[in-house]
Amino acid sequence: MWTVTRNEYTSEKNLVYETLFTLANGYMSLRGREEFSNVTMKGTYVAGIFDKHLAQVTELVNLPDPLGFRIYVDNEEINLDYTSLSKYQRFLDMRNGTLNSTYEFIVNDKRLLVESQRFVSRKNVHRFGVRYKITPVNFSGKIIVENCIDATTFNGYLDPLNKIQHYHIIGINDLRPGLGVTVETHDRGHVISIVTSITGKDKNGENALRYRKYREIGQNPQENYTIFLTKEETVVIEKYGAIFTSKDIQSTNDNDVLFRAKCELDNFISTGFEKELEAHIKHMENIWNRMDIQIDGDEIAQLGIRFNLFHLYSCAPDDPRVSIGARGIHGEGYKGHVFWDTEIFMFPFFLYTLPEYAKNLLLYRYNTLDGARRNAQMNGYKGAQFPWESADDGLEVTPKWGEDYLGNPVRIWTGDEEYHINSDIAVALVHYHSVTADDEFMVNYGVEMLLETGKFWASRLEYNEKEDRYEIRRVIGPDEFHEHVDNNVYTNYLAKWNMLKAVEYYDWICEKEPLKYEKLKTLLGLTDEMVRSWLEMANKIYIPREKGEKLIEQFEGYFQLKEVEITEWDENGLPKWPKGLDLTKLNETKLIKQPDVVMLMLVLPEEFDYEEMKINYEYYEKRTMHKSSLSPSMYSIMGLKVGDNHNAYKYFMKTLLVDLEDNQGNTNNGFHAASAGGAWQCVVNGFGGMTLESDKLLNFSPWLPENWRSVSFKVSYKGHILDITVEKDRIKITSPAELEIKIKGEKSRLKNGENIFEI
Amino acid sequence: MWTVTRNEYTSEKNLVYETLFTLANGYMSLRGREEFSNVTMKGTYVAGIFDKHLAQVTELVNLPDPLGFRIYVDNEEINLDYTSLSKYQRFLDMRNGTLNSTYEFIVNDKRLLVESQRFVSRKNVHRFGVRYKITPVNFSGKIIVENCIDATTFNGYLDPLNKIQHYHIIGINDLRPGLGVTVETHDRGHVISIVTSITGKDKNGENALRYRKYREIGQNPQENYTIFLTKEETVVIEKYGAIFTSKDIQSTNDNDVLFRAKCELDNFISTGFEKELEAHIKHMENIWNRMDIQIDGDEIAQLGIRFNLFHLYSCAPDDPRVSIGARGIHGEGYKGHVFWDTEIFMFPFFLYTLPEYAKNLLLYRYNTLDGARRNAQMNGYKGAQFPWESADDGLEVTPKWGEDYLGNPVRIWTGDEEYHINSDIAVALVHYHSVTADDEFMVNYGVEMLLETGKFWASRLEYNEKEDRYEIRRVIGPDEFHEHVDNNVYTNYLAKWNMLKAVEYYDWICEKEPLKYEKLKTLLGLTDEMVRSWLEMANKIYIPREKGEKLIEQFEGYFQLKEVEITEWDENGLPKWPKGLDLTKLNETKLIKQPDVVMLMLVLPEEFDYEEMKINYEYYEKRTMHKSSLSPSMYSIMGLKVGDNHNAYKYFMKTLLVDLEDNQGNTNNGFHAASAGGAWQCVVNGFGGMTLESDKLLNFSPWLPENWRSVSFKVSYKGHILDITVEKDRIKITSPAELEIKIKGEKSRLKNGENIFEI
Repeated sequence: MWTVTRNEYTSEKNLVYETLFTLANGYMSLRGREEFSNVTMKGTYVAGIFDKHLAQVTELVNLPDPLGFRIYVDNEEINLDYTSLSKYQRFLDMRNGTLNSTYEFIVNDKRLLVESQRFVSRKNVHRFGVRYKITPVNFSGKIIVENCIDATTFNGYLDPLNKIQHYHIIGINDLRPGLGVTVETHDRGHVISIVTSITGKDKNGENALRYRKYREIGQNPQENYTIFLTKEETVVIEKYGAIFTSKDIQSTNDNDVLFRAKCELDNFISTGFEKELEAHIKHMENIWNRMDIQIDGDEIAQLGIRFNLFHLYSCAPDDPRVSIGARGIHGEGYKGHVFWDTEIFMFPFFLYTLPEYAKNLLLYRYNTLDGARRNAQMNGYKGAQFPWESADDGLEVTPKWGEDYLGNPVRIWTGDEEYHINSDIAVALVHYHSVTADDEFMVNYGVEMLLETGKFWASRLEYNEKEDRYEIRRVIGPDEFHEHVDNNVYTNYLAKWNMLKAVEYYDWICEKEPLKYEKLKTLLGLTDEMVRSWLEMANKIYIPREKGEKLIEQFEGYFQLKEVEITEWDENGLPKWPKGLDLTKLNETKLIKQPDVVMLMLVLPEEFDYEEMKINYEYYEKRTMHKSSLSPSMYSIMGLKVGDNHNAYKYFMKTLLVDLEDNQGNTNNGFHAASAGGAWQCVVNGFGGMTLESDKLLNFSPWLPENWRSVSFKVSYKGHILDITVEKDRIKITSPAELEIKIKGEKSRLKNGENIFEI
Repeated sequence: MWTVTRNEYTSEKNLVYETLFTLANGYMSLRGREEFSNVTMKGTYVAGIFDKHLAQVTELVNLPDPLGFRIYVDNEEINLDYTSLSKYQRFLDMRNGTLNSTYEFIVNDKRLLVESQRFVSRKNVHRFGVRYKITPVNFSGKIIVENCIDATTFNGYLDPLNKIQHYHIIGINDLRPGLGVTVETHDRGHVISIVTSITGKDKNGENALRYRKYREIGQNPQENYTIFLTKEETVVIEKYGAIFTSKDIQSTNDNDVLFRAKCELDNFISTGFEKELEAHIKHMENIWNRMDIQIDGDEIAQLGIRFNLFHLYSCAPDDPRVSIGARGIHGEGYKGHVFWDTEIFMFPFFLYTLPEYAKNLLLYRYNTLDGARRNAQMNGYKGAQFPWESADDGLEVTPKWGEDYLGNPVRIWTGDEEYHINSDIAVALVHYHSVTADDEFMVNYGVEMLLETGKFWASRLEYNEKEDRYEIRRVIGPDEFHEHVDNNVYTNYLAKWNMLKAVEYYDWICEKEPLKYEKLKTLLGLTDEMVRSWLEMANKIYIPREKGEKLIEQFEGYFQLKEVEITEWDENGLPKWPKGLDLTKLNETKLIKQPDVVMLMLVLPEEFDYEEMKINYEYYEKRTMHKSSLSPSMYSIMGLKVGDNHNAYKYFMKTLLVDLEDNQGNTNNGFHAASAGGAWQCVVNGFGGMTLESDKLLNFSPWLPENWRSVSFKVSYKGHILDITVEKDRIKITSPAELEIKIKGEKSRLKNGENIFEI
């Protein structure tokens, strides 16, 4: 189960498959478009290349498309949308990270077999390649092949009122052979060069490309060649491509950027397609060796989990200046913006399997800390207020206006009120430190962020003199159906936690690195007294919960809201809007978009007991509309914790297949990266039952669905990689060192090598 | 039978229908593309706007496409190639000259009915319009409509090795509201402005367009509007467009051109869509009143003949600087070039029905006479050598190289050797004068062309001293399978005829307009002696024909060539290449591409008797491959003359349906204009049996196919319009004056009013 296959071509599915078949390497992304169809939302992105110009907000720039490749038979362009097709298959090979296609076109009774293989190199992230094997099945004659770059691409294909081309042309270059396009983004001034060239070989390895013709049509450079074919003999065309940007070379001189891109292209051609592909596959093999999950007994789950991990990894940046957007780098959903999705949903996967990327994700926050400080300042607060939506500089980029479920303009308040992102980042920081013991990171970056977010909360708290408590009013919690609420438990609880952790790490660094401690005090304008005061404030933060009451009220007044029953579910098993419900007045009901109290219990599991979890799960689950792809995975994990195993499996499968079955209906606009992270958590934290206890020990309390014979995964913990296989009645852990862990809450010591525990 | 209808949408037929549904008005042409599909060869042409740049030869320029119009439902662009479609119909209304479409799209269960009507005004040739009626069938909500101009179009969609964009952008203009694009062709420096704007009205006539957004994406300006729809209520969007060029205003200042286009657009909007459409329809009604042919008893023939006349008329220029290309102005076949197709095939239709256009076609040759003189000079001859292929200046623009039937490069010799075009033009000139008695034209333009072509032949003739005769060696006749042949009968016969007519008209103008006669002598360097010598030369031109032999040898040595039998016919009833035939050696066989000797007998019918016609028809017809759309119509007419009525009808139907059934397989690249002219000749000269006798009297010897009850047509003759109805046993002629004519060779005098002759 390593392949996702499309066996039939119908153009109306193209945009969804383009997302499913996207190839990316953390640096660049090429949507998996059919180069032989015009039904496409061309998408070429480089992580971190954002621009605003006349757009509503700063967004990830859709760059010129370098995938253009045309074949003409009898001067007729072959095209999936009008040429007869006698064979069609396209599949994503996730093990190797390649996209493979087979077409047989028929033009005037001439049958032409075209097989292609595309990859975006993880070995050299500036490179991508496509190999075409072209075979005339029943004729000898000539064809024309054409290599193209399309510099008329734009953002907003699925958002026509916000369509915009974010770049202007600096140069279109005939590389003789090869093509180049250099563009510059309007505001940010990023310069991007995209170059490509093709080679062709006949069966004897001789050059098969003849009579090159170069031209520019509109903003598209093109080069074509004539090829003379002999019946049944295969010609191999290799397309080489490279992308460089001014961010990569710290120069915005377009000649420098183009020069680097051309050098990269030359080096790629000199290395050769096959060698580069082999190196890429070798890299993928190493990665799979670290991140793969094997599920024995459930083929769909096996395929689904690999699909999610593959695409999540494809977003993982080598560059600490970028992070992963809500839709990966696979489309323009949410404009490439980074949300809490990264820290709360995706981050654990990286932390436990590929911690070097987890570190980069946190460094991205550090590198945008100045923007976060600016947000706080502009809103009248202190410290750093990380933006609800983040692009390249940490400034808040949430659009102020959007559309409600009926298509009416509606003010979006999340950028103003969804403060919990600050604590979510703090949670990830502390989690990172607990699992990696990377003190150096905490000293240089982590503590500063904890202190700045702590300071923010201190300034954000509102003192209620009458009750002698601190409150946080007018917020949005994770459940975005309810805006301007007071004292949301998730927000308040984590604000308190964030402040306490800030104080804890303030003390830690004071002891560990006195020099850095002094520096931070100077830089951040902190005094011991000020930080000490946070302790008292934090402990006075109001958590709206009756004493002894296990059921927690999501925010002040939630229990007084109107009860609306969910009675119908769609074909994906997700709730339908109850009949007669006024969608502009969701805030007046108890319906919630996604878990909020339950979310808190997952983020800080050590703070709640089994009964609390069960009661709250049962109460909120039946009021949840799952109008976010973040929702099902969390209910799956909590379901397993409280014994709702049947629903847990159902929610897990919704999570796993959100894109493969397009069950949110918007896969065309990008990959659901948070859901993918949630899927990993379902397997490892849910079925694998792995938790990091407050004593920082890993605990495993697994439970397997009936059809699963076993599940295996690896976990990186304090520099050691544990290889874990859970079966129905036992758990096998292979460890490279002696380590203390827990099995179902009981401490146990792993010996070096294989360890088996009955469960 | 006024409509050509497409009832089913399958994208692979789009390019053929684009040609069939082209709307043109002699000035501009818009290919009948589906604006809601990307499967299109966008084609916008203005007659006479040619350019060369890096193209092989000067060609008609494909201009920016102004038909772009998009509709978005739920932010999804509706598109025939991927949106669900529950209704589809598109039809060309030939009576009114409109293209009408009905679509019902389904997006997310929302059904949207879109009805459109497009016209290219014949009243004001710079204007075109499209009206969209948009009705939400089962929902209320909003949609987005988008008006666009695409300035990334190019020539060579069907000829990828010769793809080229012939213009560069001078300006892209936001007209607030409305869009403009001004471009300039590379070499010729023609400046073209294309402007468009849309209006929208709800059921109360109130403006329905809201929130205009303008942007430029690549080289495409776009403006979109939001429309709020109520279920079942229709919104009417009217799209207004105008085109002006520097040729129209004798200024290449792009501000002037744009200004004129904008004025035209403003005036058009102020006139209103409906009023302009009414004026256009009124114009079409008047034209149909003059050119229509009614065939009673044969619906397919009725539809076919109207289709041909409609498109032929749509090419008819009001501008004496342009003529009609081999593929009309409907596509890029033959690069918009003018061939003998115009004078020999299309011209008679105009001459007998719309003589003002016939005059313009001849004036085009006069206006390109300097180029023809230059051709003669460059080839070492005197006088004027009209080009085999003609663009804007009369210089030879036949490509030197093309591809043979196997796709191999092959030298094209027609531009070097197919001299008969000169005599073909002379034939049209004399024919024009005979039918219209337009002496003024002959004095000012016609005689000069006759003298210059006569002078050319005098210089081209090669004296064979041994035989004391003049020969013309190394030529191509109408049958292009045989190149470099000597003494082609068609060429020699017409050269002789051309020279004799030159002398005749020299004498005529000497008597009629002595002043002009003197002027011409000065201008053309003629002496009476020189012109007199042409008489002797002409009479010594070798016509390779045995004395008393009725069967004429197409050229010297033809009878010695290899006999190859045609034994198979394709599904269109046209011959297939005989098996085993070497297509690179067609010249060694007796197979011919199209009539040559038979053609001569049709061009100069008074020179040959019945028996000669019959023998030559029978001999050559069975050796003709009909690899030209010019071929079947001529065999049809000659078939009728010699009594091969069955084949005549078959060839007529092939002619009539060449585009409607795409029986040459290349209708995608333009309308077969010569075949259309041939179809008119089949009806009027063939079935109607009309000939212009050497005494300049019209003779009618009709014969009707069995299923035809009658055929009616009008004929313009010396300023009078005769209304003729042929029935099985009688012919009815309504005349506005007393006129002498012939019925089956017998002189007869028409009285004013209705005349009936038994036949």
